[in-house]
Amino acid sequence: MTLIDDDRLFDAEPRARGVARALYAGIRDLPLISPHGHTDPGWYARNEPFADPAQLLIVPDHYIFRMLFSQGVTLEELGVARRDGAPVESDGRRIWRRFAEHYYLFRGTPTRLWFDHTLASLFDVTERLTPLNADAIFDRIAERLQDDAYRPRALYERFNLEVISTTDSALDDLRWHQQIRDSGWPGRVIPAYRPDAVVDPDFEGFAANLDRLGEITGCDTGHWAGYLDAHRQRRQFFKRLGATSTDHGHPTADTANLMPKEAGMLFDKVRSGKADAAERALFRAQMLTEMARMSVEDGLVLQLHPGSWRNHSPAMMDRFGRDKGFDIPTRTDYVRALKPMLDAVGIEPALTIVMFTLDESSYSRELAPLAGVYPALRLGPPWWFHDSPEGMRRFRELATETAGFYNTVGFNDDTRAFPSIPARHDVSRRIDCAFLARLVTEHRLDEEEAHEVAHELAYGLAKRAYRL
Amino acid sequence: MTLIDDDRLFDAEPRARGVARALYAGIRDLPLISPHGHTDPGWYARNEPFADPAQLLIVPDHYIFRMLFSQGVTLEELGVARRDGAPVESDGRRIWRRFAEHYYLFRGTPTRLWFDHTLASLFDVTERLTPLNADAIFDRIAERLQDDAYRPRALYERFNLEVISTTDSALDDLRWHQQIRDSGWPGRVIPAYRPDAVVDPDFEGFAANLDRLGEITGCDTGHWAGYLDAHRQRRQFFKRLGATSTDHGHPTADTANLMPKEAGMLFDKVRSGKADAAERALFRAQMLTEMARMSVEDGLVLQLHPGSWRNHSPAMMDRFGRDKGFDIPTRTDYVRALKPMLDAVGIEPALTIVMFTLDESSYSRELAPLAGVYPALRLGPPWWFHDSPEGMRRFRELATETAGFYNTVGFNDDTRAFPSIPARHDVSRRIDCAFLARLVTEHRLDEEEAHEVAHELAYGLAKRAYRL
Amino acid sequence: MTLIDDDRLFDAEPRARGVARALYAGIRDLPLISPHGHTDPGWYARNEPFADPAQLLIVPDHYIFRMLFSQGVTLEELGVARRDGAPVESDGRRIWRRFAEHYYLFRGTPTRLWFDHTLASLFDVTERLTPLNADAIFDRIAERLQDDAYRPRALYERFNLEVISTTDSALDDLRWHQQIRDSGWPGRVIPAYRPDAVVDPDFEGFAANLDRLGEITGCDTGHWAGYLDAHRQRRQFFKRLGATSTDHGHPTADTANLMPKEAGMLFDKVRSGKADAAERALFRAQMLTEMARMSVEDGLVLQLHPGSWRNHSPAMMDRFGRDKGFDIPTRTDYVRALKPMLDAVGIEPALTIVMFTLDESSYSRELAPLAGVYPALRLGPPWWFHDSPEGMRRFRELATETAGFYNTVGFNDDTRAFPSIPARHDVSRRIDCAFLARLVTEHRLDEEEAHEVAHELAYGLAKRAYRL
Repeated sequence: MTLIDDDRLFDAEPRARGVARALYAGIRDLPLISPHGHTDPGWYARNEPFADPAQLLIVPDHYIFRMLFSQGVTLEELGVARRDGAPVESDGRRIWRRFAEHYYLFRGTPTRLWFDHTLASLFDVTERLTPLNADAIFDRIAERLQDDAYRPRALYERFNLEVISTTDSALDDLRWHQQIRDSGWPGRVIPAYRPDAVVDPDFEGFAANLDRLGEITGCDTGHWAGYLDAHRQRRQFFKRLGATSTDHGHPTADTANLMPKEAGMLFDKVRSGKADAAERALFRAQMLTEMARMSVEDGLVLQLHPGSWRNHSPAMMDRFGRDKGFDIPTRTDYVRALKPMLDAVGIEPALTIVMFTLDESSYSRELAPLAGVYPALRLGPPWWFHDSPEGMRRFRELATETAGFYNTVGFNDDTRAFPSIPARHDVSRRIDCAFLARLVTEHRLDEEEAHEVAHELAYGLAKRAYRL
Repeated sequence: MTLIDDDRLFDAEPRARGVARALYAGIRDLPLISPHGHTDPGWYARNEPFADPAQLLIVPDHYIFRMLFSQGVTLEELGVARRDGAPVESDGRRIWRRFAEHYYLFRGTPTRLWFDHTLASLFDVTERLTPLNADAIFDRIAERLQDDAYRPRALYERFNLEVISTTDSALDDLRWHQQIRDSGWPGRVIPAYRPDAVVDPDFEGFAANLDRLGEITGCDTGHWAGYLDAHRQRRQFFKRLGATSTDHGHPTADTANLMPKEAGMLFDKVRSGKADAAERALFRAQMLTEMARMSVEDGLVLQLHPGSWRNHSPAMMDRFGRDKGFDIPTRTDYVRALKPMLDAVGIEPALTIVMFTLDESSYSRELAPLAGVYPALRLGPPWWFHDSPEGMRRFRELATETAGFYNTVGFNDDTRAFPSIPARHDVSRRIDCAFLARLVTEHRLDEEEAHEVAHELAYGLAKRAYRL
Repeated sequence: MTLIDDDRLFDAEPRARGVARALYAGIRDLPLISPHGHTDPGWYARNEPFADPAQLLIVPDHYIFRMLFSQGVTLEELGVARRDGAPVESDGRRIWRRFAEHYYLFRGTPTRLWFDHTLASLFDVTERLTPLNADAIFDRIAERLQDDAYRPRALYERFNLEVISTTDSALDDLRWHQQIRDSGWPGRVIPAYRPDAVVDPDFEGFAANLDRLGEITGCDTGHWAGYLDAHRQRRQFFKRLGATSTDHGHPTADTANLMPKEAGMLFDKVRSGKADAAERALFRAQMLTEMARMSVEDGLVLQLHPGSWRNHSPAMMDRFGRDKGFDIPTRTDYVRALKPMLDAVGIEPALTIVMFTLDESSYSRELAPLAGVYPALRLGPPWWFHDSPEGMRRFRELATETAGFYNTVGFNDDTRAFPSIPARHDVSRRIDCAFLARLVTEHRLDEEEAHEVAHELAYGLAKRAYRL
């Protein structure tokens, strides 16, 4: 295996590299904890072989097609479905070749690291992908995917996953999760409660979603109290199927803490469809605080992923729909935005809120100072565009001195790209070991302590923070 | 002494480390200039032994109790007094043990560096603090604190302090400073003029404070002109006791430059208690410009510490009062905010304004460009959450290329933790030497020049900028 | 030549340095592409000797006089002309001596790197400039400047420039460019279309400028359609003289996309001088989108340089006029600001927009995500205050993982300091090689690939992005 080096991502300086190697050797075989991600629970339930290489590795990966699109490749050429049903490329091999022609674009990006790691470790590829070897590599992967050892459950085991969380709509019946449980397979696949469809008045079909929420729960979602009860019921249902967390993707980190009467009136207005933009935003803000209060009661960990401007290009949204690479970060305030929620529940010892950001300027200015004092707050790992070697390094450099290591929560792979999960955890483990090695060589940490911390960052913190 | 390594904070790369060592050797024994801090002048005046180890090293240190609180230790358990007088832990040994149990939380933080340095250099401790050795270390410190060599004046001398500034209310009678002067002890302890209590309409007891200011000075603080005169008098009083600077802690960096008549009307409204939030903010903004004008007259250096959201948690404020770890940085604008003041006095060669920030994004975008052209502006060292190895490194990397070294002012320890002062200066000196060593090994600076610059950063710049 | 080291700006670590050296050796002799800058086309046309050393190297360089001014040297002492015609220093030797006395202020700044490189490589100076050798160095430079080998065209050839773009007012007759073409000299000096004077209602003499634009083009610039046609004509004129780009320096990155009728009404109001500040800003915003539309038609690359608060000090503006060091960066939004333009033309494959910023917090949060998906967007190199070793390193670290290398456009020297052009390109080439060397030693990129990328960053990307 020469495609990926054993010392990748470690400092070149020999002493630092030596320490990093030693630290990494102590954690490389630890099981993977995957407390937040987007794999499809149906995969594990049905356990069917994956489709061809392009459909598995290229077509669903927005990191890949956004880069290719930026350089003039159309999404149609990459097989991304159009909303109008117009034909798109359906030949996996041609999609794969197109990708191989443009693979050089990923130099210096995490996609390149993940992809090479996947090719090397999962498919025993030993050469960098090029137009010349594209067909041969395609054939090898296609062949392997027919092998039982490449079915979802086998990969889960091969990846040494200890637990993996999916992310599921509040309206989901979780039947795949039920089916996995019923199957007797010992893999631990758990849901996470993602209520955007019934919390965000701007979500498509919001009113109908609330009706549906009422039907499922038997609660009167026409009124505030019944609506809150419906959430409580659904959270219990998710918990029974293993959930330990909720997840919230809001445009901002705004929270609110209205009096119950005011909140009820706001709900009525939002429910009626007559709320204006400010009221709809206020409702989302209020619901974060309500979710946090429920978390104090039921112990589900609250994850907040704010600050993405979704579907920035209306032309692309019209043509291809959501999640097609046009989500762009925005400047995000936390200090003012979180205050209403923190005033309500910020010093509750029973509560864990995991904060994410797409605005790195907030690490040292806002997030580390907040997480470094409020018992309810923890810092999630570098997210999305920042889930990368430089992004992780900046996170440690910017957050550790104020929040320490122990107010962080280890790694999230946060991906729907199942085959890349080991590669993603590996990058995180290596970068953390490299960071710790620097602290050791600069005499800021003993090597013995660094081994303990490395273990926590790779395994312990995620397990405890997410109550797994 | 094995607790702290002689090469700590230097790059691992041998050539860079060698240069850093040589630079550091040239400055390590320079006297400490401490132009801004919060030690108690009564300590030097009374020169009594310090209380037990916990009361000296743990209880007053908000870096320490904020981290412990974030991980579930209550402030009561740490002996922090409650406003309602309810009992809190009073046994220093138990507080010390609790700290030792949680000492691992500080891995990767500056507190760890300062604490180890203090234990090693002041108390000859040779092992990392753990629950197992906590009692023995407590006993050793407690014993030493009874020794005359550990009284405040002896420590001042041992620390090789050349001068230390306290920070004092405009209403303070400075009797401790007078008493130090009268004592014949040659240590140089000087006050700094901090007028928040009589400048900020939101300060507790503002109106009464203005009355008191009038009594002290004999000026009519019921009117704008008399109020300004009272400031002038108090500044002269502070100068007579050695002050060379003023200090201003505002929520923002806003300044204003009203016509005198408008300013007088604003004062009347603020004085009457009828000013709204915008008017109170405008008054603070106007007073920065007034203070700058007085600095042109009397030569006191103006320090501005903006951008902290004080007492972010009302629950903690109610229970424990100010300065309990819940001050959180906010995004801070300088370019627009400082303009009225800079338009008035920014190119005055006689004026020195030292700017601080808690918003690191402003270093390269705003502060270095401003200080790199306005003769009145200088950049203060990394402040508070950024007074740390990575914070200092970022400051040099982000500010030097535009502002140079000579528009910065050396180090401030800015602390009330007296025993940690040498440790704090040592971190700064080492990080600066490491930064300079990088410039030397990358052939961006000659080693001979780096020696000169290291001397300036450790000693000369602070002395000249603060006119000491 | 001992003033500048052959390994300058490379990491000290031997393996990284070795790789950087090898990469640099492969590109150091590539021709310089200078697609954006501010040299005077008259220099190449007239090809007369440059004036004395101070007039060439000190007086016109705002990096130099801003730093000296910040430390108490007046602009008059540096020979900068006053608007009131009052006398300023005119003796080049005295200006040079004053600069030499203060040369230490530039330690750690890019000016120091550029200046030393220029002295060493162009004038064979072997010692750092000091007050002691100032006269001798002045004399040597003065002597050389009389030599034909130091005339503008000879320097262009010596610098190995392949093409250089100037920046020219939309109203310019481009006669120097015509004269260069007519001269038969094979140097490629091309204009760029900078229409601020006829696009920005706040520009001095805006109405008269529009009249002049009408006269030049024969279009009716009293109406919207004629005004747009006049732009089209001028762009064609610039293209005929070699232009491949336009350049736009707006206070913000705001764009707008009004209906034609609304735009016409806005134009009428702006034309009449009755538009308020918001309308004037909206007009600038609208014109960016109009310029982008014209770029789709005529293929000129659109450069946007937003976010500078021009002439921050009114006192200095009054005394010395524009461009005297008092332009200060401001926080700049792109995600919301560019949306109207991107909605209109962002996915046009024929369009290239090169984005610059003075707000480094936008690299990873906004610019790299936008350029990493919109086909029309590319990232310009670090600009102005960030055109420096640390600034370039941050740019690569912050932008590459999301935008890759291939959505960037190589280097711009962006200078009117002609003799420093090789030095500026050299810094960029070295820092890029050092960055690539780190990727290689950390096994994130193969050395062979790094050679390819280094070539692109030094030459290929600029040439293709700017269509040269």
